[in-house]
Amino acid sequence: MTRENWNRWGADDERGALNHIGAEAVKLAAALVTRGQVVSLAQNLSPRTPVPPHRAGMQHFMGRSGGDYAAGAKRPGGFQFAEDTLLMPAHTGTHIDALCHVWYDDQLYNGFPGAGTRGSSGAARCGIEKMGPIVARGVLLDVAASHGGPLPDGTAIGVADLVKASREAGSEPAKGDVVLIRTGWAERQNGTILFDAEPGLDLDAALWLAEREVAVVGADNFAIEVMPFANGKVFPVHQRLIRDFGIPLLEGLVLRPLAETGRYTFMFAAHPLPVVGGTGSPISPVAIL
Amino acid sequence: MTRENWNRWGADDERGALNHIGAEAVKLAAALVTRGQVVSLAQNLSPRTPVPPHRAGMQHFMGRSGGDYAAGAKRPGGFQFAEDTLLMPAHTGTHIDALCHVWYDDQLYNGFPGAGTRGSSGAARCGIEKMGPIVARGVLLDVAASHGGPLPDGTAIGVADLVKASREAGSEPAKGDVVLIRTGWAERQNGTILFDAEPGLDLDAALWLAEREVAVVGADNFAIEVMPFANGKVFPVHQRLIRDFGIPLLEGLVLRPLAETGRYTFMFAAHPLPVVGGTGSPISPVAIL
Amino acid sequence: MTRENWNRWGADDERGALNHIGAEAVKLAAALVTRGQVVSLAQNLSPRTPVPPHRAGMQHFMGRSGGDYAAGAKRPGGFQFAEDTLLMPAHTGTHIDALCHVWYDDQLYNGFPGAGTRGSSGAARCGIEKMGPIVARGVLLDVAASHGGPLPDGTAIGVADLVKASREAGSEPAKGDVVLIRTGWAERQNGTILFDAEPGLDLDAALWLAEREVAVVGADNFAIEVMPFANGKVFPVHQRLIRDFGIPLLEGLVLRPLAETGRYTFMFAAHPLPVVGGTGSPISPVAIL
Amino acid sequence: MTRENWNRWGADDERGALNHIGAEAVKLAAALVTRGQVVSLAQNLSPRTPVPPHRAGMQHFMGRSGGDYAAGAKRPGGFQFAEDTLLMPAHTGTHIDALCHVWYDDQLYNGFPGAGTRGSSGAARCGIEKMGPIVARGVLLDVAASHGGPLPDGTAIGVADLVKASREAGSEPAKGDVVLIRTGWAERQNGTILFDAEPGLDLDAALWLAEREVAVVGADNFAIEVMPFANGKVFPVHQRLIRDFGIPLLEGLVLRPLAETGRYTFMFAAHPLPVVGGTGSPISPVAIL
Repeated sequence: MTRENWNRWGADDERGALNHIGAEAVKLAAALVTRGQVVSLAQNLSPRTPVPPHRAGMQHFMGRSGGDYAAGAKRPGGFQFAEDTLLMPAHTGTHIDALCHVWYDDQLYNGFPGAGTRGSSGAARCGIEKMGPIVARGVLLDVAASHGGPLPDGTAIGVADLVKASREAGSEPAKGDVVLIRTGWAERQNGTILFDAEPGLDLDAALWLAEREVAVVGADNFAIEVMPFANGKVFPVHQRLIRDFGIPLLEGLVLRPLAETGRYTFMFAAHPLPVVGGTGSPISPVAIL
Repeated sequence: MTRENWNRWGADDERGALNHIGAEAVKLAAALVTRGQVVSLAQNLSPRTPVPPHRAGMQHFMGRSGGDYAAGAKRPGGFQFAEDTLLMPAHTGTHIDALCHVWYDDQLYNGFPGAGTRGSSGAARCGIEKMGPIVARGVLLDVAASHGGPLPDGTAIGVADLVKASREAGSEPAKGDVVLIRTGWAERQNGTILFDAEPGLDLDAALWLAEREVAVVGADNFAIEVMPFANGKVFPVHQRLIRDFGIPLLEGLVLRPLAETGRYTFMFAAHPLPVVGGTGSPISPVAIL
Repeated sequence: MTRENWNRWGADDERGALNHIGAEAVKLAAALVTRGQVVSLAQNLSPRTPVPPHRAGMQHFMGRSGGDYAAGAKRPGGFQFAEDTLLMPAHTGTHIDALCHVWYDDQLYNGFPGAGTRGSSGAARCGIEKMGPIVARGVLLDVAASHGGPLPDGTAIGVADLVKASREAGSEPAKGDVVLIRTGWAERQNGTILFDAEPGLDLDAALWLAEREVAVVGADNFAIEVMPFANGKVFPVHQRLIRDFGIPLLEGLVLRPLAETGRYTFMFAAHPLPVVGGTGSPISPVAIL
Repeated sequence: MTRENWNRWGADDERGALNHIGAEAVKLAAALVTRGQVVSLAQNLSPRTPVPPHRAGMQHFMGRSGGDYAAGAKRPGGFQFAEDTLLMPAHTGTHIDALCHVWYDDQLYNGFPGAGTRGSSGAARCGIEKMGPIVARGVLLDVAASHGGPLPDGTAIGVADLVKASREAGSEPAKGDVVLIRTGWAERQNGTILFDAEPGLDLDAALWLAEREVAVVGADNFAIEVMPFANGKVFPVHQRLIRDFGIPLLEGLVLRPLAETGRYTFMFAAHPLPVVGGTGSPISPVAIL
């Protein structure tokens, strides 16, 4: 049971499960807009945005600022400006994984060679620029709420938990949905985030979503899946969802403000930065209610 | 006639003309979705993305790639991955200007001190993280089409041009709209972009839009406004729209695919990366038809 | 008692105490070469090189590597290559402070305005590119050895300690010398460096060196001076030596291999990267015995 | 005729021709110091430092500057400071190539596998941190002077040219020397540097130096060797000197001030930044006369 979605959308397909979202799905998503409320699902980005130990934090360099004028810089025609440069790992803060981000057996989603992803040129196949905008129905599965609060570190979320949260949401994940799972992970931390001990999906729960043909799986933790991993596996959910099902993962979401609206289905809109050959992108998704 | 919108939304307001977009506007925007078609308005980002001479181009560093595995890197539990780091000026490719980006007389929009924008800490006020998501009606003014093709470099777009394009669009810019102006600038260049000679808005045209209380002004050129500047001014449209009216500018859009749909009004959705104290952000806007 | 060396070498001087090194001093330094042994005084640089909490660590990006060829990259004419990009705070690892690095009362060394050091253009005065090469007699003051081992964190080194170490070295610091002080700080740490609790010079000891007209003061700790600071001062040694005496500080040295040679005076040679307007530079000094 | 120096200094050697420099050579170099004059051979580094088209220029970010204080930043205990971050390709400005920089047939100098140089971890073998300091006799071969001025772009320097310049220098390159070749390339350019048309060594001239067992070959151009390459080869001098002879190349030198001293032999001292696994390093060499 591997490679479930390979060749499903042709041998050249690089968008995977995003193909589940058709024009009808977009129209249905727009029809969910009843309040005219827009909720951001993105973390603020700064050098203080938490990153796991193997990644460097974001850096923010101001090339020109008001300080320059205070110190005497010229202002031709009265014009004053400030500008800046950003350095960040693509997988920082709220971000989405491209289908070239994770694989095994030297093959990416749809059988593209892993060796086509090179240091000198990025990913020849399944780069983030191939993903395109994501506009679909969003479904919030508030596992934290159904557990009565943020899940403890290392809690595995199983199929039963998703079924329960779906029932509470009044809506089961369906084909083409963007499913967002609230664990409460980042909310319960008091300044200290443990990246190696997160509540998250177990492999069965992830496959349950994949079988429902969802387009994207997102969560408010860093890895979507539970950490530490079970049974000596290494990122088993990443391996199966991204590489076999072609499902992009949306990580580091801020979900509490959305949860507080009381709405579980909504119009979801996001668009990664189309970095040519990129393995992911910081992203600023919105829920439109 | 300056500071038109200062204090309009309170002394602490940092969102400016985005306040024109209310819940009704969001609902009306969603109601424009009739086809279920999603069009990206963003340029691809790579070291080849054109930047003006005073800015450095984007850099894309792959920290881990398929080449590492080809060269013998370990794959614990079969897991293979690629990841990357991005370096880019915030005002690269398709991007949006924060209200702290441009000012004069040492005061930002709403009277905040320019000196509050420091090299060591970014913008204390009107940083890009204050902007929030933008979901509104989009209106395409296809000045290129109404001129019979891309405008020559340095062509000033006046009020009459906007009125004509509005008539052809069948829709005049109104309160809370995101107005997108197609000049054809980047389309007509053959590999060579001249950043100092662009077709763009003259000051009167910009003020005409501001008076209609639009929320955002965007274009497919780099500066929104015509370059070279008229009468020895320096970025007069930036000075007036951003600082006096609080209108963010959305630059470097890709508008030809949208123009080819034949639709002039649509649901517009975008959300800058919320970089704390940032002067702008790369952005990936979408038009939903 | 401030500004001791201002105007000593003219109103335009930007090299400060380095002016103490004349041609005779260089010749005497060369005459110290008796063994033909060259000892590096520099730390290795990598993302693991310790930095204080307010600075980001070095990053090392490989743009092209052997992995690309393993993954199939072309090799025109057989040619294969690897290359990389470095990102680092100028004050990382073994580095030297430019005279524009620290000041007070808005004036740099020699009275240049602090406001001339701008975010948009670096330091107009006393940038690291003004320093030039440093070739002089080096004198090792092995305070760690004279204390019988690495000094505990937070130990203040006073004048008596320097006098004692000078006596053991058989050589007192003199005009134009590069004085290197071994505290043992980095050597005694087991993987954990505390940047806010270092053994180092107290202010009197620093002034004692300045009065001897040394050209450079270096040490194997990060701040030269003791931390925490005494009496609510903030970097008092930096303020006085750099700004008033024009003495560059050479920080993060590796001094144990030099100490093990048994030589206390030697030819010292180093040259900062001449970054225009830079506040410091990583540097790789050598002792030639 | 390949791999000339492989195994010459043992199967584990990563320093190549630098092993030609023994203690006697260092002492002889120091004995050349007769004037006490120190001459920098390094270019200034700034975003304007020329780089070939496939590399990005240096970037210099000021994190804290005098502008911050002008704009109101606090100064605890009176303390004011400026600091900065550098981003640069390792092969920028005046720099030295590590022995892992260039190879062919998948093998580096001394037979180490090219695949050991990975994007994720740098060079396992022959990284720049293995090189150590370089202190030796320097010999200037002023080919520009012997030609009566800077060589035209694309001029091949042959063995006869080196022999002639050696005669004029009064000193032939010998074992362990650092040989510096002045072509005048960068001096004759008026603001425009052509990186693909440089005067430089032909392969025979390079091999002539290698056979004399020099330790390092340097020049004031970017590639040491003539460009365009002869006979469809690609960097033939790099391939042979670095990979087969283990000779590091020192590029982008500033040699005119040295030439103007009238001295052709001198003490040479330089030390690359010891970047772990780095393929090269910016460097600031000095000639001590």
